[in-house]
Amino acid sequence: MSGSTIGKIFTVTTWGESHGAAIGAVLDGVPAGIKLCEDDFLTDMSRRRPSTDKVSTKRKESDTVKIMSGVYNGLTLGTPISLIIFNEDQHSPSYDNLEHTYRPGHADFTYDMKYGFRDHRGGGRSSGRETAARVAAGVVAKKILEPLGVTFESEPVLKEDIPAGDSVGGTVSLRIKNVPAGLGEPVFDKLDGLLSRAIMSVGAVKAIEFGDGIKASKTLGSKNNDEFINKNGKIVTKTNHCGGVLGGMSTGGDIVIKAYIKPTPSISLPQKTVNDKGEPVTLEIKGRHDISIVKRVAPVLEAMCAIVLADELLANMSSKMSNVVSFYKGEIDE
Amino acid sequence: MSGSTIGKIFTVTTWGESHGAAIGAVLDGVPAGIKLCEDDFLTDMSRRRPSTDKVSTKRKESDTVKIMSGVYNGLTLGTPISLIIFNEDQHSPSYDNLEHTYRPGHADFTYDMKYGFRDHRGGGRSSGRETAARVAAGVVAKKILEPLGVTFESEPVLKEDIPAGDSVGGTVSLRIKNVPAGLGEPVFDKLDGLLSRAIMSVGAVKAIEFGDGIKASKTLGSKNNDEFINKNGKIVTKTNHCGGVLGGMSTGGDIVIKAYIKPTPSISLPQKTVNDKGEPVTLEIKGRHDISIVKRVAPVLEAMCAIVLADELLANMSSKMSNVVSFYKGEIDE
Amino acid sequence: MSGSTIGKIFTVTTWGESHGAAIGAVLDGVPAGIKLCEDDFLTDMSRRRPSTDKVSTKRKESDTVKIMSGVYNGLTLGTPISLIIFNEDQHSPSYDNLEHTYRPGHADFTYDMKYGFRDHRGGGRSSGRETAARVAAGVVAKKILEPLGVTFESEPVLKEDIPAGDSVGGTVSLRIKNVPAGLGEPVFDKLDGLLSRAIMSVGAVKAIEFGDGIKASKTLGSKNNDEFINKNGKIVTKTNHCGGVLGGMSTGGDIVIKAYIKPTPSISLPQKTVNDKGEPVTLEIKGRHDISIVKRVAPVLEAMCAIVLADELLANMSSKMSNVVSFYKGEIDE
Amino acid sequence: MSGSTIGKIFTVTTWGESHGAAIGAVLDGVPAGIKLCEDDFLTDMSRRRPSTDKVSTKRKESDTVKIMSGVYNGLTLGTPISLIIFNEDQHSPSYDNLEHTYRPGHADFTYDMKYGFRDHRGGGRSSGRETAARVAAGVVAKKILEPLGVTFESEPVLKEDIPAGDSVGGTVSLRIKNVPAGLGEPVFDKLDGLLSRAIMSVGAVKAIEFGDGIKASKTLGSKNNDEFINKNGKIVTKTNHCGGVLGGMSTGGDIVIKAYIKPTPSISLPQKTVNDKGEPVTLEIKGRHDISIVKRVAPVLEAMCAIVLADELLANMSSKMSNVVSFYKGEIDE
Repeated sequence: MSGSTIGKIFTVTTWGESHGAAIGAVLDGVPAGIKLCEDDFLTDMSRRRPSTDKVSTKRKESDTVKIMSGVYNGLTLGTPISLIIFNEDQHSPSYDNLEHTYRPGHADFTYDMKYGFRDHRGGGRSSGRETAARVAAGVVAKKILEPLGVTFESEPVLKEDIPAGDSVGGTVSLRIKNVPAGLGEPVFDKLDGLLSRAIMSVGAVKAIEFGDGIKASKTLGSKNNDEFINKNGKIVTKTNHCGGVLGGMSTGGDIVIKAYIKPTPSISLPQKTVNDKGEPVTLEIKGRHDISIVKRVAPVLEAMCAIVLADELLANMSSKMSNVVSFYKGEIDE
Repeated sequence: MSGSTIGKIFTVTTWGESHGAAIGAVLDGVPAGIKLCEDDFLTDMSRRRPSTDKVSTKRKESDTVKIMSGVYNGLTLGTPISLIIFNEDQHSPSYDNLEHTYRPGHADFTYDMKYGFRDHRGGGRSSGRETAARVAAGVVAKKILEPLGVTFESEPVLKEDIPAGDSVGGTVSLRIKNVPAGLGEPVFDKLDGLLSRAIMSVGAVKAIEFGDGIKASKTLGSKNNDEFINKNGKIVTKTNHCGGVLGGMSTGGDIVIKAYIKPTPSISLPQKTVNDKGEPVTLEIKGRHDISIVKRVAPVLEAMCAIVLADELLANMSSKMSNVVSFYKGEIDE
Repeated sequence: MSGSTIGKIFTVTTWGESHGAAIGAVLDGVPAGIKLCEDDFLTDMSRRRPSTDKVSTKRKESDTVKIMSGVYNGLTLGTPISLIIFNEDQHSPSYDNLEHTYRPGHADFTYDMKYGFRDHRGGGRSSGRETAARVAAGVVAKKILEPLGVTFESEPVLKEDIPAGDSVGGTVSLRIKNVPAGLGEPVFDKLDGLLSRAIMSVGAVKAIEFGDGIKASKTLGSKNNDEFINKNGKIVTKTNHCGGVLGGMSTGGDIVIKAYIKPTPSISLPQKTVNDKGEPVTLEIKGRHDISIVKRVAPVLEAMCAIVLADELLANMSSKMSNVVSFYKGEIDE
Repeated sequence: MSGSTIGKIFTVTTWGESHGAAIGAVLDGVPAGIKLCEDDFLTDMSRRRPSTDKVSTKRKESDTVKIMSGVYNGLTLGTPISLIIFNEDQHSPSYDNLEHTYRPGHADFTYDMKYGFRDHRGGGRSSGRETAARVAAGVVAKKILEPLGVTFESEPVLKEDIPAGDSVGGTVSLRIKNVPAGLGEPVFDKLDGLLSRAIMSVGAVKAIEFGDGIKASKTLGSKNNDEFINKNGKIVTKTNHCGGVLGGMSTGGDIVIKAYIKPTPSISLPQKTVNDKGEPVTLEIKGRHDISIVKRVAPVLEAMCAIVLADELLANMSSKMSNVVSFYKGEIDE
């Protein structure tokens, strides 16, 4: 599969440039019979949207998600669901002076290396705007997990102290509860591996840790191991140093992840760089940019985790032959 | 694709349990015409193998890699390459008391949750032994990258202070040089995303950072951005806070990664846990176990990076239509 | 990958129901730098569109393809291309009596078995309407092949003699010229295997043959083998009994395929069937239906072949290590 | 995924050359808990093996399948199963005169075009020998389908009249019973599409038809449609013109397929051809070759169908949300 698709059974394909007509996602492998309507997207999309607080960009998008297929009479059909979000507030002239310039910290240079040229307006597909489509896809993924009681909590923490014209990073801590045990497929589709890939694929993430993470690397085995106990007939870990994943599969305990976000590269302070001919230029980025994206990225990271977990949830159904036989002998079939 | 396969074009599928007859890997999509022979595997396999130092297990394996297909007259054919490593020094009785016990920090419990039962001897497929197959595959991956001057350096650092019967973790720092610019495919196959997934899929890795990583999250944008400069007609970054990856694609600069390794779970100190009936037991792990796997895991992490980079190297060849046309109009064809 | 995506490098994902708002396709892995605009779709879309001849349905669709992403300044960017075709002439009331009825020869029953329910209007996603998205994707695929001189010819042949209210099938013969030799990947991605899967995935195709096909099964080896000759320094086959594919890879000769199409299932003659409760009903299909789809399906089959060949063209670039090295040592890079 | 792997969940990767040390297959995504042992392979392997009848090659192979991983205490673990078949009766000198010659009807030429060179001994990976690995994989696939009552019948029919030194083709008719309804995933993973690809990937297959196949293309819709009836509370088709697949999904009726096999290309009659320099040569193939492979290919085609059906069986478990919820709320879980 190519780079804009993620998943094995529940797959998500995103498309769209920042200043193009629209952005969107096509979701496939969505089980039939889930209640879904356009209002379901409002909450998470608004958490991601540029707001009026001091650190977010002034670009105004309603981020309205339209369902173009795959839903009938308010229920998912099992066929592909196409979601579209029309861009409303592109301000392309802001980018005119950037067409041939390589902005430090941005993907301009690497896109040119790969493709030979790029859509420079708003950063094209490298813009954070494409994460709107991911959040929309994540809403559907969460719908697959919700009936099992899976919940998502995220806590963004900004690094403070903002000199004017500059930007800051921070962290996002995630906690996912009630994930069934046994999700993930050794050895290359280990759950922590897939979650890492999904989270690191969000622009500006530069580090990730699971459970005790870095602290674990400085601890003794006797202190880091999580003891198993019997809690009302269910086997669980007494502590959760492992962060809910052992041997690459979920333990049933909370999945605990921390992502480290770099400061947004677009700052208005003058920067030295070169253009695509290699000539030195001084860059002054105009336009409307976030001072920090840490708050806005939290729902994006939740969405990515939901997308991975929904896929693994479905893939896990065929792990035991006894379940396959029961399934087809009608014990759970309508 | 299922959990034991990684890659899109250059694919690696591993198989084998710790106490089974053998472990191995099948590599597909290997370009034809690469020199390959069984001696090529000796160096990296021996870096990974249990040695006689104080911290490694006493299990003795020669880890001899046999090439079963895909090579003729010393050259790769382009057809699948099957590599086999026969297990020699399994000591199954050491594990007799573990058949029904859930060892803390190990995958015993999660394997049972997923599959209903497991091969408990030596940890079955969850054992670190399966990484031998990955290192073998990595040797071939490195052969694809070598002619372009790509080099791999890794530096394991052990956390010191080992009480008897316990274990420690540490870190492995990786530096990969001379990677061509533009490798990686936005948005879900971003290079740092794929490398994270590959590294996190190695047992005991609990955190990963790229470039300045965690430090970047505490820095101002003006300090974290890497300025572009013209160095002898080639555009490079002046600094390398980004760790060689921007917008999910390689910049041409060194790829810098740090992985954090938890302490090995098998310790001989008594531990409290439960068995598969939920009954409390006191576990005393016998047998031969590493006090720290940090040194042995370094070549495994290199191998995983090589596997990802080789795949992206091949996938990138079709990014520009001008190259596709030149290719088929015979300008580079034999 | 899930059922609505085809391809490894050049991938196509389609979506949309017959009576939904729109249908569309997302194309990924398209090389950057190809000239593409909305006018490029006019010819093939109109070949597929319902026309005014006697055998086609009276449903009127302009089948206008809109490009929503992936193209800038008239050139493909290398990022995903999203194509949308808005439905215009749905006539849902025609289908009211069909909501609970299983139409013979249609997918109503099998969709209900798989998903539990379906969008019955116009046949939902099982409608031939979804092939409009495939033809649009095929236009882009043909653009990847065109610079190499690859051409597509198709000849639909209707079975004659149409009693009123009934339908007929026929055949479509395809000839694809100038395909480079060596495309296809043994053993499961053999070119004829992939082309078969692509063609059989078009509704109503019930048989397919390559080259001499069925005739080959009745011939002696001495007559069926294609002799190799030297034609102006190029090795070609003297005859083409194999239809351009040998050992699963293209020979460089014409690829010759014949597809057999069943009669369209929607006829206005009364038919006996059951509803979803198993009760017998007599079905009289109203609305506007093709008497034969054979002519309209020809461009769809061309599109499917183009999609497969474009993918294999790109995948083949990494078959030889010598080409990989030349590529990255800059001999063909811009 | 690369060309030697087939499947989404239940995947099969084959490897091995005709005159190499061995051939084999790695199976992944096999549900845990299936009884499997080396004796299970004897029947199908012996149906495929060269025998002593007049039409088969004289090469003697025991085709003994060894299980190297993924099975413990006689049950599949859910981890990858590696199967190996050691080659015993290679007769490489028979091929010495063929190293630079392009045998008509064989893949010698196309392998050279793709890879630049090949293992000419016994035809390398293009040899029919690699189908032994497929039959072995098919045995495991059949084990996944067996508990549901799925059965495989195949009937090979040889074209008669064999002049000495020449070869003949024929047909293989397949009938697969008791396949659950709803398997297959529109639109590109339609069941007939996947089965076609799998069958056409077997060397020497040149045409394939489903149900009435070619006859359907000459029939009226009123005659070709299969009426639905209520048979003891179960909805089935009264006739089976469609061959068990409608809209790309299984109906629950018998899956009926006919494959057309070309005559084996290796004949001992002298043939004109060229070598890899383009020089004309007269070829006289020595060695031991089948006069017809039709009988031996029947179990190979069954195996390919089983591999596809097993995969679709597992993929189908997540089609309805109601089943996903029941599954995880423990109604069928151990």
